[in-house]
Amino acid sequence: MEHKEISKSVLKRLPGYLAYLKSMPEGSSLYISATALANALGMGEVQVRKDLAMVSSGGRPKIGYLRESLIDDIEQFLGYDNTTDAVLIGAGKLGQALLNYSGFDAYGLNILAAFDTQPASGSAGEGKPILHIDRLEGFCKTNKVLMGIITVPTAFAQQVCDRLIACGIKAIWNFAPTHLDVPQNILVQNENMATSLAVLSMHLQAQIKDKK
Amino acid sequence: MEHKEISKSVLKRLPGYLAYLKSMPEGSSLYISATALANALGMGEVQVRKDLAMVSSGGRPKIGYLRESLIDDIEQFLGYDNTTDAVLIGAGKLGQALLNYSGFDAYGLNILAAFDTQPASGSAGEGKPILHIDRLEGFCKTNKVLMGIITVPTAFAQQVCDRLIACGIKAIWNFAPTHLDVPQNILVQNENMATSLAVLSMHLQAQIKDKK
Repeated sequence: MEHKEISKSVLKRLPGYLAYLKSMPEGSSLYISATALANALGMGEVQVRKDLAMVSSGGRPKIGYLRESLIDDIEQFLGYDNTTDAVLIGAGKLGQALLNYSGFDAYGLNILAAFDTQPASGSAGEGKPILHIDRLEGFCKTNKVLMGIITVPTAFAQQVCDRLIACGIKAIWNFAPTHLDVPQNILVQNENMATSLAVLSMHLQAQIKDKK
Repeated sequence: MEHKEISKSVLKRLPGYLAYLKSMPEGSSLYISATALANALGMGEVQVRKDLAMVSSGGRPKIGYLRESLIDDIEQFLGYDNTTDAVLIGAGKLGQALLNYSGFDAYGLNILAAFDTQPASGSAGEGKPILHIDRLEGFCKTNKVLMGIITVPTAFAQQVCDRLIACGIKAIWNFAPTHLDVPQNILVQNENMATSLAVLSMHLQAQIKDKK
């Protein structure tokens, strides 16, 4: 693997730098130093300097990075400039919300179509097509899709996962709140909003009880 | 605090059990054992048994749990039966997608309104109102809101966070990819889709390079 080895914790911080750099108002300085970035984000200077050095060679002593170049370097590093085509399985409420969420473009994610046992192709107006699940295999092969997004009910998540892998999918974004068994070369990234909500809700319950 | 102490790892598993139990087809057995649940989800039996015992006292030896009661017990434990009112700050693409996502009902989350520097009240048709950010304080006090959802650009996340806390918010669901400084009694739950996508994208890049 030629790509520099990079830890998940670095990967976790890079989108934060990127979002901050992009959200700086017009008319901001053309250059930004690791120190300034660290201060703005309330992070350690040493850590920010190391992280930036890992993704960009454009830093100059006492001046910092040209902001636009740093944005490009981080985006390139994160693969946002290569568009990744994906399929989404399960066109329920969450699936449809993700399918029609236009903000993924900025991260280089392009959801080509959704698949469901209840297709709705043509009926979604401007939206992306919702095709019958039986068309999944052909579609993935024709379009050389490598990423799958799972938004089916928990009970069906593993079988959908197996089917995606058989279609040649190498990376799975899993929104079903369950563990998926996969071969070693497949990466599963779990996104569990239900857990997040449970954690928040438990905290509020505890606060309310403390007051009583 | 009267509420049983419970670890985040247990909280992380409970929504999975719940989702599975709810997705079981009609006509399934009325009872389900910890063993059956563990097998279905590919988890350890001991762990599942402990987790269930923590949230429900309805388990009977050799029979298991009455499925409907177990669903109720988990939902009650997770606070899904108490509706939590929330406000959302930042009505961009992600904010609007979350605002109009109807699937949160099942988790007891009710987003009352969104706030933005560019309000759009009335124009959203059936959708929930997008009010001017200046109305945030009054709205939160009138409606005794305890949860805030942050979907503003990174550069504004901390100031929005501070403002929410001043309004009496105790729990924050943060979709801005940045760390938020908060007092000890406030819980921040970070949701970072950009990170998830970066991790998936890095994996795909590595796979493609390995092939070359």
